[in-house]
Parts: sequence; structure tokens; C-alpha cells
Amino acid sequence: MVDAVWSLPHHDGSAMYVPEPNITLGGTVDVFLRVPRASDVTSAWVRVISDGEPELVRAVVDRQDAHDQWLRATLPVVNPVVSYRWLLDGGPYGYQWLNGTGLHGHDVADAADFRLSAYGPPPAWATATMYQIFPDRFAKSADRPAPAWARPAAWDDPVIGEGPDTPRQLFGGDLDGIAAHLDHIASLGVGTIYLTPFFPAESNHRYNASTFSVVDPLLGGDAAMARLAAAARARGIRLMGDLTTNHCGDTHEWFQAALADAAAPEASFFFFTSHPHSYAGWWGLREMPIFDHRSAELRRRLYDGPDSVVARWLGPHALDAWRIDVANMTGIHGGIDLGHEVATTIRRTMAQAAAESFLQAESNHDASRDLLGDGYQGTMNYAAFARPLWQWLLPPQARPYAHAKYPLLPNLPGRLAVRAMRELSGVTPWQATLHAMNLIGSHDTHRVASLLGDARLVDVAFGMLAAYPGIPMIYAGDEIGLATMGPEYARVPMPWAHPERWDQRRLATTRALFQARARSVALQRGGLRWLSIGDDALTFLREAPGEAVLAHAARASHAPVRLPAALVGAKLVGLAGTADLWADGEGMITLPADGPAFGMWQLNGM
Amino acid sequence: MVDAVWSLPHHDGSAMYVPEPNITLGGTVDVFLRVPRASDVTSAWVRVISDGEPELVRAVVDRQDAHDQWLRATLPVVNPVVSYRWLLDGGPYGYQWLNGTGLHGHDVADAADFRLSAYGPPPAWATATMYQIFPDRFAKSADRPAPAWARPAAWDDPVIGEGPDTPRQLFGGDLDGIAAHLDHIASLGVGTIYLTPFFPAESNHRYNASTFSVVDPLLGGDAAMARLAAAARARGIRLMGDLTTNHCGDTHEWFQAALADAAAPEASFFFFTSHPHSYAGWWGLREMPIFDHRSAELRRRLYDGPDSVVARWLGPHALDAWRIDVANMTGIHGGIDLGHEVATTIRRTMAQAAAESFLQAESNHDASRDLLGDGYQGTMNYAAFARPLWQWLLPPQARPYAHAKYPLLPNLPGRLAVRAMRELSGVTPWQATLHAMNLIGSHDTHRVASLLGDARLVDVAFGMLAAYPGIPMIYAGDEIGLATMGPEYARVPMPWAHPERWDQRRLATTRALFQARARSVALQRGGLRWLSIGDDALTFLREAPGEAVLAHAARASHAPVRLPAALVGAKLVGLAGTADLWADGEGMITLPADGPAFGMWQLNGM
Repeated sequence: MVDAVWSLPHHDGSAMYVPEPNITLGGTVDVFLRVPRASDVTSAWVRVISDGEPELVRAVVDRQDAHDQWLRATLPVVNPVVSYRWLLDGGPYGYQWLNGTGLHGHDVADAADFRLSAYGPPPAWATATMYQIFPDRFAKSADRPAPAWARPAAWDDPVIGEGPDTPRQLFGGDLDGIAAHLDHIASLGVGTIYLTPFFPAESNHRYNASTFSVVDPLLGGDAAMARLAAAARARGIRLMGDLTTNHCGDTHEWFQAALADAAAPEASFFFFTSHPHSYAGWWGLREMPIFDHRSAELRRRLYDGPDSVVARWLGPHALDAWRIDVANMTGIHGGIDLGHEVATTIRRTMAQAAAESFLQAESNHDASRDLLGDGYQGTMNYAAFARPLWQWLLPPQARPYAHAKYPLLPNLPGRLAVRAMRELSGVTPWQATLHAMNLIGSHDTHRVASLLGDARLVDVAFGMLAAYPGIPMIYAGDEIGLATMGPEYARVPMPWAHPERWDQRRLATTRALFQARARSVALQRGGLRWLSIGDDALTFLREAPGEAVLAHAARASHAPVRLPAALVGAKLVGLAGTADLWADGEGMITLPADGPAFGMWQLNGM
Repeated sequence: MVDAVWSLPHHDGSAMYVPEPNITLGGTVDVFLRVPRASDVTSAWVRVISDGEPELVRAVVDRQDAHDQWLRATLPVVNPVVSYRWLLDGGPYGYQWLNGTGLHGHDVADAADFRLSAYGPPPAWATATMYQIFPDRFAKSADRPAPAWARPAAWDDPVIGEGPDTPRQLFGGDLDGIAAHLDHIASLGVGTIYLTPFFPAESNHRYNASTFSVVDPLLGGDAAMARLAAAARARGIRLMGDLTTNHCGDTHEWFQAALADAAAPEASFFFFTSHPHSYAGWWGLREMPIFDHRSAELRRRLYDGPDSVVARWLGPHALDAWRIDVANMTGIHGGIDLGHEVATTIRRTMAQAAAESFLQAESNHDASRDLLGDGYQGTMNYAAFARPLWQWLLPPQARPYAHAKYPLLPNLPGRLAVRAMRELSGVTPWQATLHAMNLIGSHDTHRVASLLGDARLVDVAFGMLAAYPGIPMIYAGDEIGLATMGPEYARVPMPWAHPERWDQRRLATTRALFQARARSVALQRGGLRWLSIGDDALTFLREAPGEAVLAHAARASHAPVRLPAALVGAKLVGLAGTADLWADGEGMITLPADGPAFGMWQLNGM
């Protein structure tokens, strides 16, 4: 089953459709609708919510060209978040809504309205490709004595993937090790390094911090962080840290102070049900006491104001961005829900500390309530990217999901995978889709090479990662084809000394993909217009003013997708190793029909 | 096109599927899934969100009977609102989600999760049929001198539907007039009278109150309210008032005090941009200054605590419920959004003043954010009932919508109308659907008799009003077939003295429908299970423990819908004038295929 959807009217939040990125409360904003000439839409309105009430704004014809008519509507910015959708006079019953999930021939709820915000867009650098490093496993610059909790490992030792020693196995990767490999990282077109936690903790993952005051001496301490930051900045690469605002370790100095004295200020940072024995822990774990965000002193120390942890680690000596661990849970406990307040306070503190800072949230599901622009600016995109993509590409044999959230792992046709992507990105603003951390693997999943098996399917996964809207996040090692099942087993040290273990073809194609992305505004910031949605092949355009890229992803060989040159031009210029294509005598361009395969092309004459 | 959907797995928030109505924070709640034997579902999980994180709970087989297997899952009530959906091992790809909008073969967002709340269910009386009265136009007990602003009218005068005199035309209906006609109201199976505003105001609609301290003397004053409340209560009928918390009239004593003195406490109740000349009004109207809910003194006087307007009018001398006018806008102004705080404070005040009180919101669109159980308990249901129903029943000729919100009035097939109903009710908890004020006409719409034209289509509209989940609201006069276009023209005085203007057939059928509803727990509180969704005919079950009612609504003659006796029993007992039906020799029951027509039947042997 294939849906040719290129004649449908289109709108998204990209610059083709919302040219003005800075939206002012009390002002107006112009929004545009592309109506292909083949469409039956004759007129349109925008339904916009002002002070809680929907009103309709009539769209007018702004311009037309050989392919499209462009309608324009001027919306009042009455509230900080402008929630709107298009009402079209067209479709089989003369009545269609166009919202973030597409066209609907019936009335719809507001959840998937398009949304613009007056809170200001994320910084321009933030859409660059990310590279995720789990510091203990990336590279080691020096031998250091192991602490008492650790089980020291040699770099080539096998990973202990199960049992009590899993978090204790310490390979000794450090920050100077990372700095020594910036050539490798830069060769992938990377603009941001995402470091999982670097604060001291009694585990290799460091999500159970003992303090937020210093960089772990096992990683080289504050000085190594400053060296890494300087070396990275010299290459135009920025750093993102990883902070647990939901909990800390039971070894944390604040928790220890709280344990020692029920009257200590820190005692209010936690949920003691019976001091000191009984307290709330993350998923009931005693090792990770969760924070009570009702405490103003906790907020001040952790994320509210210039003396907070969040503010102090921003700057040239360290970070440009934070990723907030289990952000979806932070601030929520029983009858207390301070999740939104936590997010907006962190964001405000960051904006004051560093204007160009960037805030990411971990979430593995629908995070729409946190993505309106005043708090988290993006999330790790398991929900609207990784899971639907895996579901499309996975072999039909059922395998357990990466972090065991779902017992069923289906193999879905393209149209259902795309529906999931559209439904889950459609409930967030375009800026949140553009700033979501797309991924095909992370420290919490299987290695993509093992999950998908067939290297050509991995090509497709990497191609989608490079071409789909969002921030591609490459999990260190995936670019050389590291292959292991099980999230813990996948935390394998980078085999720098063993080039024979590197998949050099994977490395070359990954470099080509993300270097091409680094040169393309369309791939970094362009809109998303679907052209063809088939069970086995997906075709879409990324379009920015002045540049457009066409992407074609196939999980299997399929009936050829033919596109009119009137739509995409007479020549498609292959990117990242893809061969050029020309229109045939009928004025049609035929995309490659083999698969699994991925290709992308720059549209000529744009 | 007809979808026979009776073999699909089903869940909703009714007692068949969530037997325990009182949900306790920190406890657990059992939820049930009905899996018809014809279904391909083999196992199921419930995905429930706890402290912001999804977790999966495996369902077990609770019981089975000849038709169905019932699965049970025990959910932890970690937060006051339990958000969950079912994950089914079944469907074409072995993977389906079941949420408030139905079955989905792909991942979905959380907006349509089923939701249960620990805030407690609305009072049991609240699902009774409502009767809406616009006091100036219902009945008059005495002649009173007209105030200076008014244009007095005789009861039989034509309504002035346009121009400056529209709000000034005063017919003089009053509360004792209503009390004199309780026989008529009771004959319609009504349990609640909804009175549009009764506070003094310089208009016939009274949405621009001059005070909230007394009942308008033109309506008979406080004493008449006490007489009406007592007389209604004696018949088991309760009263719901209508309060403008969004704004008042510019004649209001608070606004006058604010105008007179910028230092008066009342000056903080409003948004003065330049005192006294410039202030924010509803839709910019100077006659209706909007309230600034940041003022604690305003909140105290209007709705926060026992001395507030909201509290003082609750009790045996007056009201059991409030309908909040333009609730969707209340508390929202530019960068300020106190909508949720307003709703929860009103609700808390009401619960303290009268445990069995009930809170409704006016909203004409998606009100899901306000319906989680801690604030408004229902809304006027234009979005999920009236508009989809009108769109299904309206003749294909386009006519303008009632309150001009939408320029296009489509005529949609049943499957799209039902999708709209499911999408818009699916984003709210079942209790909100059950307590939504369903309507086919109001003081803000055309008269349904005129809008639909064909009396048989009006039969279908009334039938759906009686049978669909929610609180049916009958707009006074619709039950006798009053017919006028234009919301203002539709505010026609009840022609008590002109029985020849009454549609006696409409009155008889309406009485039969709503008396049947008053006797049926299934119609008042039962779940909603769709059996067949056709373009021209809709068939569904309302099911409660021990009773089930089948409803069949057709907008035109259609291919007969045949249902197995194994599903609905061998005999269907007609309600409200519908003829009984028996299974044929093949064990099938054939529903009437003519139309427009409506019928409903009690299932025998339930």
C-alpha cells in the first residue's frame, strides 16, 4: 500500500511556513499554507485560540507559482503559546482540518494543534548533530587508583552486563581521553558532545551522584573538564551535561546531611516517611533518594538562580547545555506535581546564566506537556522517532524492547510507523520536533547493529537519523558498528587499539551522512513534507528557503516511486554517496526501487 | 459504508469496566477489558503512568461467559489522575493500543489515555436530564414596572433578534412563573433546571450582572428563588445557576467602585490599562469588564471560601449546581493563565459548601485540560456531541453555524461524525463524558426544529440526546417544537396561552424518551459500546450491571443492521414507543431499516 501525498496542502512550523522566528506577545504572526495546484482546497481559515476561546481568521492568497498557491493568515499573539489549526474548504465533504498530525475530515481535539511560542526559539547551534559519550567507556588518558566500590577492568575486558558488579565495573575512561579523540568526533560532522553524568558517584554510570560540586576526579576533575571544553570549543563543538534533578545517590552530601540530622536544611530536600530509615527512592531504590521540589533551598542549590548547580556549570569552562535525566518524573510524586515549575525554573536559570544555552529532557514517551517552549526545549526522541523507526525496520521476529517497557515488538508497515511519528510529533510544537534528540541507539538500548541485524537496515536507520527533523544523536561506537544486545552489554569500551574491530564501511557512510547534514540548512532546520508513504518505502522533503533535500528510505525492494520533475526538478543531486538522478522523457524522476537502502538528494534549481 | 464493530475489545470508565467508583490515592483500582470471543486478542497489558513514567501491568483472565472473556488488571493509584491505556496482543500486526478514541495499530500520544481520578465522582443526581430556562422568556407570574434600560414587550410580541434593542427587550418572565409550570417540566423526566443568570443586570440575558448579591427583583427576588427551590425540591428537581466569573457588567457595584477610586480594593479586580478610561473587556466590549483573578480579594468575594458568591447561593434556598459562563476563558488574559486555579478553587469552595454540589463549565470546544476531576465536572457539549450530531443530520445544503464560529457546515457520513465524537470525548475522562451537558439546541443556537427541518431528523436528534452518554439538556421550547433561526430569535417566549402553536407529537415523544431515560440506569450511567457505525445509521449499546439498552439512529433508510441474538438476546423490548423485536430463525435480530428514525430497546435477559 502506497499513499502518494505530495498533492496535499501542507503547513509546519519551519521558515517556509512561519518566516518570523521571534514571536512577540501582543503582536501578530503570519502563517502560510502551501496548496498544491492538484489540491481541491478552495479557501482556508485559521482557527486560533485567544484567551481560551477559538476564533477564525480568514486566509488570503499571498502568491502563486507554477506548483503551488500560498495562502497567508495573520494571527494575533494574544497568549505566549499560539495554538492553531487550518480549516480547509475542500476534501470529499468540503471540510477538512489540518493540524500537526495531518488532514482530518471531521472535528478534532486541540492536542495536535500547531503551536508557536513567544518564549523564543532555542539557540541556532542546537540543531547540530550530537555525539553521546558514556565517559567510563569512551577513552582513557591515564591510570588512576580505583575507589573501594569499584571493580577495576582492563580496557579490553568483557562488559559485565548483569548482576551486582554491572554498575561497579570501572574501565576508567576520562575527559582527557575524550579530548584526545576530538578528531574522530569532528569527522562525524558533530556539533555537540553529550556526556552522561560526570559528577562523582559510586557507580560507572554516575546517575547516583555523591555531589554536584566537582567533576569526578576519576574523570580528571574540574581541570580536565575545562581542558575538554576549550579543546572542543576550538573546533566549534559544544558540551551538554546530564543532570539528575529527580534524585541523587544515597552517598550524596545533601542526603548524608539529611540522614544525620532531621533538623538539617537538607532534610527537607527528600521525602522521609520515617527519618532516617524510610524515604522515597526512584522506583523504590534506596540508592537513589528522590528530591522534594517543594523545598526552596533545594531549588536554590540545584537549579533556581545563579548559584545553582544548573547555572554554575554553564560557561566556557564547561557546558552549553543540560540534558535532564528522567525529566518526565522530576517534580512529580504522589499528589505533588511540580514538573512544569521545575522545567520552567531550570530554563529561566539557564537563560540568565548563558543566553545561548539549551535544555533537553529525557523522556521515553509523550512529553508534549513539557514542550511548549518555556521549559524543556526538546526530549530524547524515543517516542516519535526511535520506536516507530525500529518497528518499521525490525525483522518480523519478536525481540524484547530495549528498556523493557513494552513486551511486544511489532513489525509495522511504513504507513503505521509514519502515523506513529506524526501522532507523537504532532502533539508538540515544531520547534520541539526540530530540537528533539533523535536516536537509533543509546546507553539505554541495544546496539542498533545488533537490533536490526542486516547492515543495509542499519544504513536506513542512519539515513533516517541524518534526514529526519530533529537533532541526530550518534551513540559513540554505533558509527563503527559495535554490536551487542542488552543495554548494559552495549556499554562496551571504544576499541581504539583494535581497528580490526571497526566497521570501516559504517564509519565512512556515517561520516558522509552527517558531514552532508552539517552543510545543509534544509537538513538541519527545514520543514517536513511527506511525498509518498508506502509499506516498504518512505519519501519526504526537507525544505528551507533556498534549499531542499529529498530523502528516500526503503526497508525492502518495492514498486518504484515516480515523482514529477515539476515537483522536484529535472535533476536530483545525490548527497553522501547517493547517485544523481535525472527526469525521464515523461518528465518523471524514478527513485531507486531496491532495498533495504537509503538515499538523499539536493533538489536542483531551488 | 458500515463498520460492524461489535467484535472489538472494549473498555470505558463505566461500572462494567471500572466497578469501584471511589478511587483512593495510594491504593489500587481494578480495570476490566471485554474481549469478545470473535476477537483475535490473545493477551493484554495496561500501560499506566506513575509519577510521570509509563509502566506496564499485565492483565489476567477474570472470567468468561458465552460471549466474552473479561481481563482484569490492578493498577496502582500513584497520582490523583490515573492515566492508562490497553496494549493488546492482537490485530493484523499483533500490536494494538486501545485508548479513549478506540483501537490503534501504532503508537499513540497520551492525550486520549483513559483517565480515572481520585478527586471523587460527581454526585449521583447529576446525570439526570436537564431543562434549560432563559428566565425572561419562560413564564410570567406578575406585571412589574420596567426599568429605564428596558423595552417592555407583551408576551406575544415578536422577538427583536437584531440591533441595539435585542438585549433590552424585556418580556418579564420570572421565577414564580417557572414554579407555576413545574408539572410541565417534571413531565419531561427532568431532574435539574438550568437557569441562565438571575442576578440583576441591564439586559434580558443578564450575563452583564450589576451585582451578585441578590436575585433580580424583576424575577421576584430572593424570596421567589426560595419558593422555586422549595417547589422544585418537593418534586425531586434541583436548580443550577449560571455565573459569570470571567466578567461582570460595567454597571456592577464592584466595577463602579473601581471606576470611582483607583485606590479602592475593587480596582484590583479588573485590568485597567489607564484608570478609569481604559480597561480590558470581554471580546473588547466595554459593557463587560473582565476580572483579574490575581486579586485575592476578588477570589474571596467571588468563589474562594464560604463567604463567596459561589458558596452563598448553594443550599436549600437556591442552588445545587453552578454552570460557569465562558469557563474556557475565565482566568486567562494575555500572559496570565489562572484557568485551572479558578476551576479548582470554585470546585473546592462548592464541595465545602454543599457536598452534593455539581460544577459545569461552558465551553464550546475541547475542554479536556479542565476536566480531570479537580475542577469542572462537565461542560456544555457542543464539541463532542452537538456539532458532530448536527453535521451528521443536517441536510447537505450549507447553513451557517449557530454561533458563527465556523464558516463551513458540512454534511458528514456517520463514520466521520462518530470519529469526531470519539476523538473529542476520548480526550476527557469517562466521568466528564457522563457529566457533559449534551444538547441539540440552546439559548446560543438556532432552534433544532428549524436547523434540521425534517421532523423525523429532529426525532433522531432527540433520540440521540436521550440515549448518548451525558446529561441531556432540553432547551425550553424545543420539546414543543418551537422553530426559529438565529440564536436571538430563538429566545422566544413559551406560548403557554397558545396550545395551537405546540407540536403535541413532539411533546409526547419527548416525554416518552426522557421518562424512559429517568427509569434506566443504563441510559443514565451505562457505558458506551458501538455495535455498528454506518454512514446513515448508528447503533450502540448503553450497558450497566444488570441492564442494557440498545439505540439505533438512522438519518435515512439504509441496508438493515442485523445483530446476533447471542449478542443482544432473542427479544428486544422497545422503549419510548419503539416496537419490540424478536430474533429470526437464523438467530439474528434485524433492526428497522427506515429513516430518518430512532429506536431504543431494553435487552431482555440482562
